[in-house]
Amino acid sequence: MKQLRIAIIGYGFMGRAHSNAYRKVNNFFDLEYEPFLKAVCARSGDKAVAFAKRWGYESVETDWRRIIERDDIDAVDICTPNNTHAEIAIAAAKAGKMILCEKPLSMDGPEGVKMVKAVEKAKVPNMVWYNYRRVPAVTMAKKLIEEVRLGKIFHYRAKFLQDWTISPDLPQGGAGLWRLDAKAAGSGVTGDLLAHCIDTALWLNGGMESVSAMTETFIKQRKHTLTGKVTKVEIDDACAFLARFKNGSLATFESTRYARGHKALYTFEINGEHASIFWDLHDLHRLQYFDHKDEGKLRGWRSIHVTDHGGEHPYMDKWWVPGLQIGYEHSFIHQVADFLESLSTGKPAGPTFRDALETQYVCDAVLSSAKKGSWQKVKAVGR
Amino acid sequence: MKQLRIAIIGYGFMGRAHSNAYRKVNNFFDLEYEPFLKAVCARSGDKAVAFAKRWGYESVETDWRRIIERDDIDAVDICTPNNTHAEIAIAAAKAGKMILCEKPLSMDGPEGVKMVKAVEKAKVPNMVWYNYRRVPAVTMAKKLIEEVRLGKIFHYRAKFLQDWTISPDLPQGGAGLWRLDAKAAGSGVTGDLLAHCIDTALWLNGGMESVSAMTETFIKQRKHTLTGKVTKVEIDDACAFLARFKNGSLATFESTRYARGHKALYTFEINGEHASIFWDLHDLHRLQYFDHKDEGKLRGWRSIHVTDHGGEHPYMDKWWVPGLQIGYEHSFIHQVADFLESLSTGKPAGPTFRDALETQYVCDAVLSSAKKGSWQKVKAVGR
Amino acid sequence: MKQLRIAIIGYGFMGRAHSNAYRKVNNFFDLEYEPFLKAVCARSGDKAVAFAKRWGYESVETDWRRIIERDDIDAVDICTPNNTHAEIAIAAAKAGKMILCEKPLSMDGPEGVKMVKAVEKAKVPNMVWYNYRRVPAVTMAKKLIEEVRLGKIFHYRAKFLQDWTISPDLPQGGAGLWRLDAKAAGSGVTGDLLAHCIDTALWLNGGMESVSAMTETFIKQRKHTLTGKVTKVEIDDACAFLARFKNGSLATFESTRYARGHKALYTFEINGEHASIFWDLHDLHRLQYFDHKDEGKLRGWRSIHVTDHGGEHPYMDKWWVPGLQIGYEHSFIHQVADFLESLSTGKPAGPTFRDALETQYVCDAVLSSAKKGSWQKVKAVGR
Amino acid sequence: MKQLRIAIIGYGFMGRAHSNAYRKVNNFFDLEYEPFLKAVCARSGDKAVAFAKRWGYESVETDWRRIIERDDIDAVDICTPNNTHAEIAIAAAKAGKMILCEKPLSMDGPEGVKMVKAVEKAKVPNMVWYNYRRVPAVTMAKKLIEEVRLGKIFHYRAKFLQDWTISPDLPQGGAGLWRLDAKAAGSGVTGDLLAHCIDTALWLNGGMESVSAMTETFIKQRKHTLTGKVTKVEIDDACAFLARFKNGSLATFESTRYARGHKALYTFEINGEHASIFWDLHDLHRLQYFDHKDEGKLRGWRSIHVTDHGGEHPYMDKWWVPGLQIGYEHSFIHQVADFLESLSTGKPAGPTFRDALETQYVCDAVLSSAKKGSWQKVKAVGR
Repeated sequence: MKQLRIAIIGYGFMGRAHSNAYRKVNNFFDLEYEPFLKAVCARSGDKAVAFAKRWGYESVETDWRRIIERDDIDAVDICTPNNTHAEIAIAAAKAGKMILCEKPLSMDGPEGVKMVKAVEKAKVPNMVWYNYRRVPAVTMAKKLIEEVRLGKIFHYRAKFLQDWTISPDLPQGGAGLWRLDAKAAGSGVTGDLLAHCIDTALWLNGGMESVSAMTETFIKQRKHTLTGKVTKVEIDDACAFLARFKNGSLATFESTRYARGHKALYTFEINGEHASIFWDLHDLHRLQYFDHKDEGKLRGWRSIHVTDHGGEHPYMDKWWVPGLQIGYEHSFIHQVADFLESLSTGKPAGPTFRDALETQYVCDAVLSSAKKGSWQKVKAVGR
Repeated sequence: MKQLRIAIIGYGFMGRAHSNAYRKVNNFFDLEYEPFLKAVCARSGDKAVAFAKRWGYESVETDWRRIIERDDIDAVDICTPNNTHAEIAIAAAKAGKMILCEKPLSMDGPEGVKMVKAVEKAKVPNMVWYNYRRVPAVTMAKKLIEEVRLGKIFHYRAKFLQDWTISPDLPQGGAGLWRLDAKAAGSGVTGDLLAHCIDTALWLNGGMESVSAMTETFIKQRKHTLTGKVTKVEIDDACAFLARFKNGSLATFESTRYARGHKALYTFEINGEHASIFWDLHDLHRLQYFDHKDEGKLRGWRSIHVTDHGGEHPYMDKWWVPGLQIGYEHSFIHQVADFLESLSTGKPAGPTFRDALETQYVCDAVLSSAKKGSWQKVKAVGR
Repeated sequence: MKQLRIAIIGYGFMGRAHSNAYRKVNNFFDLEYEPFLKAVCARSGDKAVAFAKRWGYESVETDWRRIIERDDIDAVDICTPNNTHAEIAIAAAKAGKMILCEKPLSMDGPEGVKMVKAVEKAKVPNMVWYNYRRVPAVTMAKKLIEEVRLGKIFHYRAKFLQDWTISPDLPQGGAGLWRLDAKAAGSGVTGDLLAHCIDTALWLNGGMESVSAMTETFIKQRKHTLTGKVTKVEIDDACAFLARFKNGSLATFESTRYARGHKALYTFEINGEHASIFWDLHDLHRLQYFDHKDEGKLRGWRSIHVTDHGGEHPYMDKWWVPGLQIGYEHSFIHQVADFLESLSTGKPAGPTFRDALETQYVCDAVLSSAKKGSWQKVKAVGR
Repeated sequence: MKQLRIAIIGYGFMGRAHSNAYRKVNNFFDLEYEPFLKAVCARSGDKAVAFAKRWGYESVETDWRRIIERDDIDAVDICTPNNTHAEIAIAAAKAGKMILCEKPLSMDGPEGVKMVKAVEKAKVPNMVWYNYRRVPAVTMAKKLIEEVRLGKIFHYRAKFLQDWTISPDLPQGGAGLWRLDAKAAGSGVTGDLLAHCIDTALWLNGGMESVSAMTETFIKQRKHTLTGKVTKVEIDDACAFLARFKNGSLATFESTRYARGHKALYTFEINGEHASIFWDLHDLHRLQYFDHKDEGKLRGWRSIHVTDHGGEHPYMDKWWVPGLQIGYEHSFIHQVADFLESLSTGKPAGPTFRDALETQYVCDAVLSSAKKGSWQKVKAVGR
């Protein structure tokens, strides 16, 4: 078994999700490579030590530059706030490290371009953690489209609804809340939630041409955790946009943290000439499927419990038995498995930095459209 | 257009449901016959007059014997409490009237036999209002079974759950509450609710061989509305039974008025070798269908919105457009349409009295089994 | 009982739905007025006669001007294609007739203004058949909002999805297909389907400020039934728009006839500070409700079967018993009941022509936005 | 951190589920103890070695007696076929090992009694892997009942439906198929699936008094994998029974491997005076809850996504963020966490062998009832 020596930078929510994936992947997947948890890096040494102990990291660093310098590290996993991705990734690329970067790739398109150039120049394997592609039901949606089950696509609609920032008493910024701080996050729901929706959409439905967007910040001022002062909220609390795809289909996208009753309701639906697909993160192990080719009187939306074996349902023959569901964390395990597999095959595991740049360009167009109040073209990513 | 002159006896809930069906059927169905609302009969003259006015009955009677005697009446519709069905039906048959009788047919099997003999001797068209057979989704279930979609049947399970008698303050007996009075109703949930489940089951799955049942009366005493006294409750509040069908399938049946949260949840599910069916009265316009012959990875329960035209979905081409649902009352309209059609074709519209006698025999076996604590054979109905 | 003598113009799908409502309303509602079906008008005398016979209309006309002239008509019900509404309604108003007009009110705002002026000058009761307001679950949504259950509204989202025009072989224009002919319909899904969504939204969420829309015609040419020639399709097959309401909420609206798998899926969801509501025409008897004030661990979307009595659920005490659902047609019966009630009380039954004009202004802004590719203000309706 | 040195006997489906739990528990739970994977035992040395390598077991044995003899083992985990549980467990108890035994406890009640006596005499911690108690939604159901939310219980109904043995070509016996071999399994669905339903029911609803059951073997003969001969199938393919609980409630239970369309549909519903609960293994992260104390017009079944933090939803604060679901395997992790916790607190983690014996007595009564065709009392477990 070959070892992939990993250093993780950041120990928050995503640090746990990725570490869990590294630890479990070889129990379930037969692979040539296995992750070796070499180091964790965090500014707080105490927290890094505690994290290393819990997850089995061999060593601890408090400056990410030390990670880059160490020659016993093969791959760097970036789990820090968005505004730090570029600097770390570019340095890591220069040092010849593979990079697994949390999403969104960057603060904006121009920054993303630099990151893409860096990894491509260095020829290092690179991947962005848009994990929802590897939920089995979503992967199956991709396969159904590739098998031309849907025919010409007419409509795509996606939303990602949450309700955790409705209270005006919630502060902005600081540990666990940097997603509410525009300086750290770049944007609000657009980069945090819509980026997921956009990544999936580009993967399933191809490139986007143009968008018309609106954003809103419902709570105008919040206390900032770091300064203690009440300051203007700079992020978007909600964002909705219309889009036209290159394949001629029309789309609507929406995201908000003010949709009472929804915790993490990411849904998408695709309507094709022959068939339609619907998926919902709140019941992620199911795919809804409608096929017009079914006999007339028996047509109906099928609720497919995506838990079968025998290669029928993506990734599921690695797990339990039909009918027994897996959860959110498994999407990360699948992504690690595919990344490790890619080291053997030499075929990149998507989304690469370049793939993720395309999402960044859509986000840029969305934010620009909302600001200007006009339709905006989406910048093309060279291929 | 030929007229069928109808007299209805009883003006309660079912009196309304039937009257509505008579009034609407020819607006939607093309038939040779149309109902003419000749008379309504009720002991209270005032109430009969009010009912006649509201629904357009031409005349009023306060003694059902007068209805039988009148020679301007073709058909008698019996909507009175269960303990009166036999006497009225037998008299009506002797007078040569067609009979549409509310369910259950009778207080028990022996009484039912007399009714069957009376209508068959008189050769009068006869039908019992087990209306759920004519919910389009249920009729379609019947068709799917006839088309041998399910293959060998392994399992049948049905339940009818309500929650309206949980309060100990609810009285028994009297207007609107005769269903709680064993003298008027014969039994509790067995004859009121399970009889529906049994009728559908016999229709869809054939004859039943034997049963093992249990019943319970949770509230032992209630004030009786008519006497004002607190007396023993004689009906069954809940009844569940196991059954074996002649086709080798196993079944469970359950009914109660103590299932908090369910208003009128009649559901049935049939599991066959190749396919399964599920239906639910709370969403009666849908049929759930699973077909093992579907391609493996795309198998799932289909939620069929039974509202299509073109003969695809039973009865639905008479109504609105696909996607627009009909309701409870339409099952009665369909039953009237089929009854009127049967007068033209000469082919009886089921369930006839003889069909309903079979349900009665199952109820007898169920109540006997519960009383004796042992399995009971179901008496056969000659054909 | 006072009689309201009605003449109906048009005998298509809506002619049936309205006639059914007129015939049934007094069987279930206690009202001072009852409809008297005085006349039906259609260009084809034979069809009018057949319709009159089926539904019990006393007389037949083949020129709508004759209806206007007759002094034995109190109210005119306009069920003809959209391009004829204005002329008939204005003439009827001048003749002092009450008017019940099918939706949408008019071909566009300017035409609608003339209609509003005519009925208001003539002081005749007037109403537009946006029937979905009277689905009990939708009426209950209105009550919950009036009771301030939701608090500040953040989001509104509605869609109306169909799939019946995907085949390129479907012709445009002619009987039953005038909805595909821009000359008769004015627009495609915008006036046909989105108008319903907009009417409900304005009723539930107040006025709209501005919109950004896109439309598409997927099949560019179709054979025209009347001419036999293949001509350009002028209607919008799909339309989606972003909107901002006056109350500060953000909205998305979408409609299409190319959403495979959906027959008539009109859904809306409202997210408020404290509670959220979701409704779906495919299961119209249910309301989904989430209340953040529920105890934390027990919070969840409630599936309310809107069939209770005792005034709890709007209109439902007129129908059957809890748990037994009603259907699409009942929304029209409720609307007739409310209209008849309004004649007694003198309080108009909405939506009036003026109410419906507001919907027209939104449609105008939507179509203009789609054409120009820019945000458009919605014209204000004076009140 | 104290180490619990574990030896696992058997490396099949459950061997994997348990090993995964041991490896993950300390990543997510803060506990005094951590499992140390000391040894795996299997008759096939090669398979044992491969399993040890994959899951990190330190050593390998091919005779379980060696495990018992080793003094570097604290706890034995029995994952072998049912007919071996007693011998291994009794020997382990005598050797002073803690025991975690797969369900069902034993082949029958008398054998179970011996096991209970052995562990209680040896005073070793003992537990049976009825893992569904630790699905968060199920644990929450238990809490709701303890909080007296439901009031008096009227009804309990459970079923466990599968469809994997419908094909007559499926052989019986041998690796992976010992569950179809009566000699290894003791019974069919009764011990395999109904035992789960019974364990949960006894936990949630208290003791059972009496049962009336029926069983069926649909495919009478199957080829036996080990002998290659077609022999009689001795197990029950399906089993249904009626039950009366000590608290006066009525129950129905059903299990089968012939319910086309259901992979592992374990559901239970409890109807109480004030509230009802429904749960479903196919969507295990949800609990359906109906509370009659809700305001009348807003009563409905709540679909609770059991993924909240802050102690609101059992176990969930150890995992991800609200809205992100966990899966089947987590029930085992929770059970290990509770077992490790019990070593610190000294309070046993249920179900103990004695708890599981009660389930065995119900199974005995069920099988006896089915054989004799009569109601059977359930033997009492002394406490």
